This record gives sequence, C-alpha cells and structure tokens, in this order.
Amino acid sequence: MKKTEVDKLQEIIRLGSELVDIQDLDILLERILRESRMVVNADAGSIYVRDGDELIFSQVQNDTLQAQLPPGQKIIFSTFRVKISPKSISGYVASTGEILNIPDVYAIPADAPYHFDSKYDTLAKYKTTSMLTVPLKTNTNDVVGVLQVINARDDFGNVVSFDWNDEPFVLHFAGMASMILQRAQMTRALLLRMISMAELRDPKETGAHVNRVASYAVELYESWAQRRGTSQTEIEKNRDVLRMAAMLHDVGKVAISDLILKKPARFTDDEYEIMKSHTFLGARLFTDKQSVFDEVASTVALTHHENWDGTG
Amino acid sequence: MKKTEVDKLQEIIRLGSELVDIQDLDILLERILRESRMVVNADAGSIYVRDGDELIFSQVQNDTLQAQLPPGQKIIFSTFRVKISPKSISGYVASTGEILNIPDVYAIPADAPYHFDSKYDTLAKYKTTSMLTVPLKTNTNDVVGVLQVINARDDFGNVVSFDWNDEPFVLHFAGMASMILQRAQMTRALLLRMISMAELRDPKETGAHVNRVASYAVELYESWAQRRGTSQTEIEKNRDVLRMAAMLHDVGKVAISDLILKKPARFTDDEYEIMKSHTFLGARLFTDKQSVFDEVASTVALTHHENWDGTG
Repeated sequence: MKKTEVDKLQEIIRLGSELVDIQDLDILLERILRESRMVVNADAGSIYVRDGDELIFSQVQNDTLQAQLPPGQKIIFSTFRVKISPKSISGYVASTGEILNIPDVYAIPADAPYHFDSKYDTLAKYKTTSMLTVPLKTNTNDVVGVLQVINARDDFGNVVSFDWNDEPFVLHFAGMASMILQRAQMTRALLLRMISMAELRDPKETGAHVNRVASYAVELYESWAQRRGTSQTEIEKNRDVLRMAAMLHDVGKVAISDLILKKPARFTDDEYEIMKSHTFLGARLFTDKQSVFDEVASTVALTHHENWDGTG
Repeated sequence: MKKTEVDKLQEIIRLGSELVDIQDLDILLERILRESRMVVNADAGSIYVRDGDELIFSQVQNDTLQAQLPPGQKIIFSTFRVKISPKSISGYVASTGEILNIPDVYAIPADAPYHFDSKYDTLAKYKTTSMLTVPLKTNTNDVVGVLQVINARDDFGNVVSFDWNDEPFVLHFAGMASMILQRAQMTRALLLRMISMAELRDPKETGAHVNRVASYAVELYESWAQRRGTSQTEIEKNRDVLRMAAMLHDVGKVAISDLILKKPARFTDDEYEIMKSHTFLGARLFTDKQSVFDEVASTVALTHHENWDGTG
C-alpha cells in the first residue's frame, strides 16, 4: 500500500526523535534504511559506508528475499567491498557526489560512465529494476557513504520507477545517516589523534607495546565474557571499545620527562612517584567525556597498574 | 495560517537535506528554530546552548517584536546566562531532561519546582503565555541545550496552548539541533584534547606560550582583515578557528626529546634538524581531516617558522 502524506510525516517525525535515543550505529542505519524504503515504497535497499577508497555494504534489506526465509532469519550477505570508481553505480555516486535515479538498471545506455553489475542479482536470485542512489555527504562535503533504494512498487505491487518526488525524501534520510556516520567517525578520530600523539612521543616502543597490550586486553575480555555467556554481538561491540581504550592506557606518559622515561637504570623513589603519575594524568585527559570510548579509556588509563584486588 | 500536514512534511523534508549543506552552527540553529516555530505556529522561540552549569541564549526569534523593528534590523538580546537549576523553566528542562508544555506561564501552580521569570517580558515589552520547552539531548544522554517555542497561535492569530500533537514535531527538530551541537562540540574536543596533551608535555612553558602565540595570531589577523574590509561576522568566525589552530602550532614537539627540547645551551646541527621536524610531524597529525579546524591547524603547524616570503 502506498503511504499517505500524513503517514510519511508521522514516520519521519518519529525517526527524528528516535535518532538521539539509539546509541548503536548499526541499529541506527538499519532504522534509517527501513524508513527510507517505507516512505518511497521500495522493495529493497542498501547502505554502503566508505572505507578509504572502497565502499563496504553496511546494511542490506530486501522484502522479497526476506519473505522466502524462515521467520527470524536475516539475509546473509558477505561483506562486499566495491572500489570507488565511476564505473559502478554506487561508486559513481560516491565519487561525483551526484544522485542517480535509474528507471531500469538493465537499460542503462552503453555510453553512460557507470554500468550495473548483474552479478549480485544472479547470486541473490533477484531482479533489480529501478534504483535511486544518493550520496551520504557531511557538512565538510566529504562523501562518507551511499544510500540506495531498489525497486519502487505501485499500489498493486508492480515494480515502477522512482518518482522525482521521492528524491527529497531519500535525501532527508541520507542527511540523517551522514550526520550519524560523521559522529561515529569523529568519535574514533578523537582517540586516534591521541594515539598518534603518544606514538610521536616514543615511536620505537609505544607502537608495538600499545598494540600488544590492546591485544592482551581484548583476548582476556573475550574469554571472560564467553564464559559468562555474553552474546557475540555484545562481545564484538565491547571488544572494539576496549581495544581503543587499551591503546591509550599509557597516554599520560607524554607528561613524563625522557630523563625518567628512558632511564636505563633503576628509578629513585622520587622518579618512581613521577612515573606513577602517568595514570591519573592520562585519565584526566578524558574528563570532557564525548562518548563511551572516553569513559572506558579514562578507567583503563587510571587503573592499568592495579591488581585484581584493587591494590597496586 | 495553520500549516497543513503536507506543508509541514515539505518543510521538514527540505530542512533534513539542507542540514548537511550548511556549515555554520549559528545559521543551522537559526534555521531549525525557524522551522520548529513554523510547524507548530509559534510566535516566538529560543535555543539555549549549555556551557558548563549555565545556559546561554544562542537564538532568539519573536515575530511580534520583529514586526515593530525597521526592516533588516534584528532583535537585540544581551547574551543572557541562566544557571542550570530546576527553579527556572529552561533550567528545569536542562537538569531533568523532561519536556515542559505549559499553557500559561503566569498560571504555574505555586508548588511547581519551577517558576516563570517575568523579567524578560518586562524588558522586551512582550506577553509570554503558552510555552513548550524540550531538552537537546545527545545519544550519550547529555543535555547540550534547550529548545523553547512560545505563544502558539490559532488560525485567527489568538494565542493558544501548544497541543500534545506539537510535541513530536518539536522533538524532531530538537533531535536535529542536538546532533549539530554535538558535532560542533566534538570538533572542538578533538583539538582541546591535543592541546591538553601538548600541555602535559611541558606544563610550565607550553600553556603560557600557546596562549601568547594564539593572541598574537588573532590580533594580526584582525587588523589585516579589517583593513581588507572583511565583515565582522566573517572575522569572528575565522578568529575562532585561527585561535584554536594557533594553540596547536607546536603540537609536533611531543616528538622531540626533552634532552633537545629543554637543552639550555646551543643546539648542534643534528639537534637543530631534529628540532625542526616538529613542524611537519605536527602537521601530519591532522591528515585525517575532520573539520575546517584541522585544515587550518595543519597549515599553521607546518608553516609557523616560515617567513612571509616562504623562506625559513
């Protein structure tokens, strides 16, 4: 059934206020894609996220294929990666920042810069026809991904073209998705900058040590969590946060003089006290908490020299 | 005139796609407040932004007062600051995170925790009656500000209460405003963290030196820009970016050993070469550009030892 304007309005309004309640990036993108498809009556759709010069499938939804699966089962899609080049449809949109509204992907003129790769249709046993693809652009005009809706349907369920009226709606959702992706990127960037600065401080040792400690921390966490019966999704999320936080456990060492930090002999008592200050000096850097990463990183920096019983 | 549902939908859709095109925080908040007021037919409204334990007026709009001014002139409001406490309406919303939909601010029950401060009405010669106030919450559940719409009007221009139907609309716009404020905060946080780390490295000198250089840079820029006839708004924006960037001009010094950095005597040739590397090592920290701050900071870090003619 085609949505009325009032239905659309209600959906859009509801999503707007939900976006601040949901923390999880994947759940947010899943919701945005679902709402975009609902509003323009699309059978299927995807969100791709940019990773360097590639696009990665982040969300894939397809009502027709989903209906063929047992209840509760999700569509399985390998994490396809597409090189960003104007030759593919999503790559064209990502590299030019333009919108593509294609009535029939099997009837793209031969002289178009992009063409449709029918490999995915063959693999999925699906027939893609109409396709509306828009870039996910940030306010600094960077493309962070692509949102694509596939096979618009009329009131009788027949596949039709996407209307030019549909474009502003999809662009609205693309705007939401871009903001959310940008926020996630900045959250990571904040810690990555700090890691880079800490590495500059001590390039020979820090890099290797930091990665070693992060790997140990993640290993320890994983076997502890598995024994406690934590779900795999939960484990994966925490693992990511913990890895970043653990990489910053020694960040407070920027405050310690080389004379102490690199002293080949034993510390004097005074030097030892100064050395120990790297824990709370490090933790203090995260006072202005921007995300859950900062919470965890602060705790790790403060307590990474403690014993299990709180002494140390 | 009361908006139809279709009008509202079009406004909301348009705003969603505009949000990624506009870079400027004030312009964005101005647009969001205007759209919120239009959709719920409010005569006036404000956006407050949180600064520590205070709220600062960021946007003030009032159609009645505006109509009394000569064309082109804006409402002048001193930058009021309100302590965040449950005693004021905006403070209550900011501290509890609750919505307040008040039919008549002059009829708030005496036992309510909050009360209306009629001082602003007296100052502005305005009569506030109905008021809908919602928090601007981030996905980490922090309140970063408050959005308030004032004096809903019916089709005949009479002041009426805000309907419960209006709340989701205002919350939708509040969601947009929160995301935008959070993005702006993270942009600043990214640089402030780096400044804090650089200060840890050399707490005695860095803090004072950094502020001195930033002030010189801003002074120089201002008189240069004024002579060129740059607008005051433009100058103020650039000044803010330049100040942050200038504070990071020496950030690459985290890479330089204390043995060189704090050497009381003259550098050897080798030491001097190492010392000079703080320019490009610093600039490299901003490679993964997150905002215009990073562009400027990278340039400042790289070129701050150059002469005007490019030598140095």
